[in-house]
Amino acid sequence: MSHPQTLFAQTVFHGPSLLRSRLATVGRATTRAQLRHLRETGRYDCFRLKRQPAHDTDHRWPCPAPAYWDSDVAKWLEGACYLLAAEYDAEIDAAIRELVALVRAAQQPDGYLNSWFIVARPESERWTNIRDQHELYNAGHLIEAALAHSNYYKNNLLVEPIEKYVKLISEIIGPGPEQKHAYPGHPEAELALLRLFTATGNTKAYDLARYFVEERGNPIGQDGRPYYEWERDQRGDSPYKRPDSYQMHDSYFYNQSHLPILEQKTIEGHAVRAMYLLTGVADLLCLDELGIKSFPRKSEYFEALTRLWNNMVDKKMYLTGGIGAVWQWEGFGIDYFLPQGSDEGGCYNETCASIGVIMLAERMLHLDLDSKYADVMELCLYNAVMTGVSLAGTAFTYVNQLASSEADKSRREDWFDTSCCPPNVMRLFGCLGGYLWDYGGSGKSAHVNVHLYTTARVGFEVGQQQVILEQKSNWPWEGNILFQLQAPAGTSVTLRLRIPGWAHKNFTLTPSYPPAEIKKGYLVLPPAYTSENKVFAIQIDGFKPRFVSPHSYTNQNTVTLARGPLIYCVEDVDNPWERDHFRNVGIRSDAEVTERDEAIDQSGERYISLRCLGWTRKVGDRSEPAAGTQPGSSSLLPQTVVAEQKDLVFIPYYLRANRGGRGHMRVGLLRQ
Amino acid sequence: MSHPQTLFAQTVFHGPSLLRSRLATVGRATTRAQLRHLRETGRYDCFRLKRQPAHDTDHRWPCPAPAYWDSDVAKWLEGACYLLAAEYDAEIDAAIRELVALVRAAQQPDGYLNSWFIVARPESERWTNIRDQHELYNAGHLIEAALAHSNYYKNNLLVEPIEKYVKLISEIIGPGPEQKHAYPGHPEAELALLRLFTATGNTKAYDLARYFVEERGNPIGQDGRPYYEWERDQRGDSPYKRPDSYQMHDSYFYNQSHLPILEQKTIEGHAVRAMYLLTGVADLLCLDELGIKSFPRKSEYFEALTRLWNNMVDKKMYLTGGIGAVWQWEGFGIDYFLPQGSDEGGCYNETCASIGVIMLAERMLHLDLDSKYADVMELCLYNAVMTGVSLAGTAFTYVNQLASSEADKSRREDWFDTSCCPPNVMRLFGCLGGYLWDYGGSGKSAHVNVHLYTTARVGFEVGQQQVILEQKSNWPWEGNILFQLQAPAGTSVTLRLRIPGWAHKNFTLTPSYPPAEIKKGYLVLPPAYTSENKVFAIQIDGFKPRFVSPHSYTNQNTVTLARGPLIYCVEDVDNPWERDHFRNVGIRSDAEVTERDEAIDQSGERYISLRCLGWTRKVGDRSEPAAGTQPGSSSLLPQTVVAEQKDLVFIPYYLRANRGGRGHMRVGLLRQ
Repeated sequence: MSHPQTLFAQTVFHGPSLLRSRLATVGRATTRAQLRHLRETGRYDCFRLKRQPAHDTDHRWPCPAPAYWDSDVAKWLEGACYLLAAEYDAEIDAAIRELVALVRAAQQPDGYLNSWFIVARPESERWTNIRDQHELYNAGHLIEAALAHSNYYKNNLLVEPIEKYVKLISEIIGPGPEQKHAYPGHPEAELALLRLFTATGNTKAYDLARYFVEERGNPIGQDGRPYYEWERDQRGDSPYKRPDSYQMHDSYFYNQSHLPILEQKTIEGHAVRAMYLLTGVADLLCLDELGIKSFPRKSEYFEALTRLWNNMVDKKMYLTGGIGAVWQWEGFGIDYFLPQGSDEGGCYNETCASIGVIMLAERMLHLDLDSKYADVMELCLYNAVMTGVSLAGTAFTYVNQLASSEADKSRREDWFDTSCCPPNVMRLFGCLGGYLWDYGGSGKSAHVNVHLYTTARVGFEVGQQQVILEQKSNWPWEGNILFQLQAPAGTSVTLRLRIPGWAHKNFTLTPSYPPAEIKKGYLVLPPAYTSENKVFAIQIDGFKPRFVSPHSYTNQNTVTLARGPLIYCVEDVDNPWERDHFRNVGIRSDAEVTERDEAIDQSGERYISLRCLGWTRKVGDRSEPAAGTQPGSSSLLPQTVVAEQKDLVFIPYYLRANRGGRGHMRVGLLRQ
Repeated sequence: MSHPQTLFAQTVFHGPSLLRSRLATVGRATTRAQLRHLRETGRYDCFRLKRQPAHDTDHRWPCPAPAYWDSDVAKWLEGACYLLAAEYDAEIDAAIRELVALVRAAQQPDGYLNSWFIVARPESERWTNIRDQHELYNAGHLIEAALAHSNYYKNNLLVEPIEKYVKLISEIIGPGPEQKHAYPGHPEAELALLRLFTATGNTKAYDLARYFVEERGNPIGQDGRPYYEWERDQRGDSPYKRPDSYQMHDSYFYNQSHLPILEQKTIEGHAVRAMYLLTGVADLLCLDELGIKSFPRKSEYFEALTRLWNNMVDKKMYLTGGIGAVWQWEGFGIDYFLPQGSDEGGCYNETCASIGVIMLAERMLHLDLDSKYADVMELCLYNAVMTGVSLAGTAFTYVNQLASSEADKSRREDWFDTSCCPPNVMRLFGCLGGYLWDYGGSGKSAHVNVHLYTTARVGFEVGQQQVILEQKSNWPWEGNILFQLQAPAGTSVTLRLRIPGWAHKNFTLTPSYPPAEIKKGYLVLPPAYTSENKVFAIQIDGFKPRFVSPHSYTNQNTVTLARGPLIYCVEDVDNPWERDHFRNVGIRSDAEVTERDEAIDQSGERYISLRCLGWTRKVGDRSEPAAGTQPGSSSLLPQTVVAEQKDLVFIPYYLRANRGGRGHMRVGLLRQ
């Protein structure tokens, strides 16, 4: 099996598109900006194993920022390797080479490789707080960095020390009576180890990843108790001593270890952890699916995966593809708890979490080719994730609320104390080509499943001959995609083209093919069609602006404008009359919406804005009672009393916080 | 100054009313039922100072239930003393006498008096966790019990050991360099000490209470640090070791010690603690107001009180008078965060918390005679509090959500592990007469401010002569109140009658008095009127059913039926077709509402039910998409698509969970 992280290079963005433009910006600007921040904050030097001020000044327990510096460096390194493949940059190249040398030199004789523990903690503390101190998380990101590095540099300079580290970890952790029956507090190592196994055949890596998945949440894992409780007692910590992110003293839902994965009915806890964990689970199933490694309880785990996916998407996902309503644990609230902003009770939507959704969705498509996964993948990509990086590629968001407030304005930062999101954006865009489609074949047959539309070309070999599929479109602005297929004579090619849910099955294939079927949201073009039509086009409808709303049980009573895969929002920069974060602004579901083709001032990048007539809500009665008067006295009015009609300008959510303004923004406006 | 707890005996409920009927039930049934539970659970015996199984089996840190057994006993004792005054009961009398003897015998030579610490903890642990272990809270309730006891029994058998205990506490805690600069983790002692001072003139009690109020939240109180942090370090506890009710490691908002009271801008944290604390603050101001004890920063504290009252009532109070949206800390959420039930994200509304609102409102009326306080007091009494006790007086609620769910049905329990609410209901009803009105006078002038309407008579002396005011009404069902005044010839009597906010100033006074003014919601009847009219009636309008709604910013979009002071709800017992807790049921704001006079089957108690036509919401589209599909796909419909019209029957919220059914209940129904 192949992952997007290895396949992306087979895809070339050969013509203009929003994705190519963003990828180029991330490659040029983000990579350098992030490198500068890594240097300025000391992270770049962490593998020099010198004590730095932050090692002594950051007292947050149990995880000060330097405890995950290794992962910041590793993610940058991984993303930079992907992006170098698209465009060479000597400064970046040099930095990668230096970092790799530093990592190699930092490894301890026994294979141990964690800068914070080596520099700032006594040796006896290693592996004593696997729950909270990110040792395995850092290891996972180092593994992924090593794979990206070996893929680009075609050498083992980073894979070698990493495999030595994996060997050490699999001695320390495992099912043996002398081993720790542990699993990562912050999942990530699972999917990294399985990628390592896929790339190198390292079976220790496979076994360890599978152990992590199967052992997780075991109520009697160590001395008849859950591992983390046993570990806590070994440290001598009170059950009531807990990180700020744990709601209660036994809130193991935080890291998805409250139950074995198979027994989890709802998606809970820290959203990034949940996504990384389930991506690892899906990888185990993919390896079984491909016959590479048999996984006996595959169907039960598949059931758990779909159950948790469905719970997440149906009841815990925002319209933008954002996940995680609760700030305290950066994660999921109860079903349908989806306030738009922190002034309404929540909304976190970490950029990394939706990147995790994209990773999980990609794996799910291998297990169950259903456009619902690709729809959500695309939703996250163009909305919850793309909004996380500025147009210039140098400023970022960590939290992606659907509505700003005075306390949480819609704005960007150059860097964060916990800076997981910026390099994660690099990693995602760096291998974006790998998410567009999956493909393969053998002998005389080949297939391409097209998940995302843009302008790109993929080439791959089947029976030692090249199959090339090219798509050309103005996606996400227009739904017309022109395909060109090159395949060796006599090779049967099946193409499956995603028909997005929002197109409601409305599309036109040219030349037409009446027998074509849609299977689980993919239009299947069999060899009978592809052999006759090397050039064909599909026109997908759904680019007329439409209104979408969250589920009624969210108590939101809002409408949002969407167009194709894009979710729209309002910003004060286009609506300068607004002073209260659009809290009292509504649109009529029957409003006439007009489109305007626009260009960003600085870059000339084009986008389509939407306009319609809105209204402002009158809050309170004409005879507003005095403060402190019995509740309910002032609110006999329906919510929808129109104080004033207003012209509203909407822009794609991904564009927010890029063009000045006061940081007032909202996605869902009141419904009349 | 006098408190309702001492004045109540001057009021006689001399004719039938809802309040008298409830008071009688609480007196007869609740007092005995609670005594039985005190006995069965070991609480009754706690002052025997024998180790009981619960001392060893309840491992909750830092406060297992036996740590506040003393307060359960004290609150029962206090309430029982009030209720004995209304109706003698030999069994109760005997139990009180025995308990008092046990308390006296339990006191340690130095005055210490806390059964849990004496029995279950080493002596060195006393006063080491004032933040969480309820020593001062228990002391406060013992003080209140002692005052009730001395009031009824006219002896000092309980006051004596309690004053000795107060002396000990005021040696341990205070501003001196050798003293602990502490204040109660669970406020209550403040108001209790001030009542003790009022009753006995004990100035140590006054000084200690005032110290508690002024020291609270001092950021440099002990060794330059907040007291609770200093105390925690003395214990050797990590800052991250915290009770489950603390959101984060430094969440001192939980017990209102995050800031000095004067700097608190919003009402935060545990709702009962907040109410008890502010009641104590108000008492300090009342004592100044009456010239009993001067309190120099009175105006600043009054500003803080009104600021916190206004924030609570305007932004953090439910339509029923319930407070506390958040289960974890049994307290306030952010402004306008008022979900109706736990399946929507919260709603706690502890019975005790609204009893606390009543106590605070009563004090505020002394400081600022404004009907808004009495309106909220009455709202709490007839709704959030009265719903807390069953019609039979033997079953209770602790949490009073506005909507049930499968996980939290609308139902009652005989007892709770933390059983603060049942005896608190006894305490409140026991001295209810003291809340109806305040009154006084000197020389030749007298006044009565009438806050609550019912059928009752108050008699008090002015210039050694008796003034008697009698009111007779069918409140809360009808708004006609007949007054009879007896006053000595030559005594000028001013009466002030509350005009509830929901009456919108619509009332008829008979005989009429055109010059009468309404001042801050009270109709002022001056001596010119009262000397001429010893019998008069007021007809207050507002008993036509009306619709009320929470503030738009709550995102509730619901309407609720109200009538007079009563808030109504729907229950499945009257609407047996309902299967999902009325989650999808709505009413039209323009619906015609009819009334029906009804009687409870068992007791014959009468009430008025309301009826109107409702509708059920259709959730989802006709073409419900498959599970796990991009959010927003199913919800293009407005919320108000009517699937079906339904006849709805509404009952007063206080009646819920009394007449069988499956525990489905809701206060706010969808707005069309």
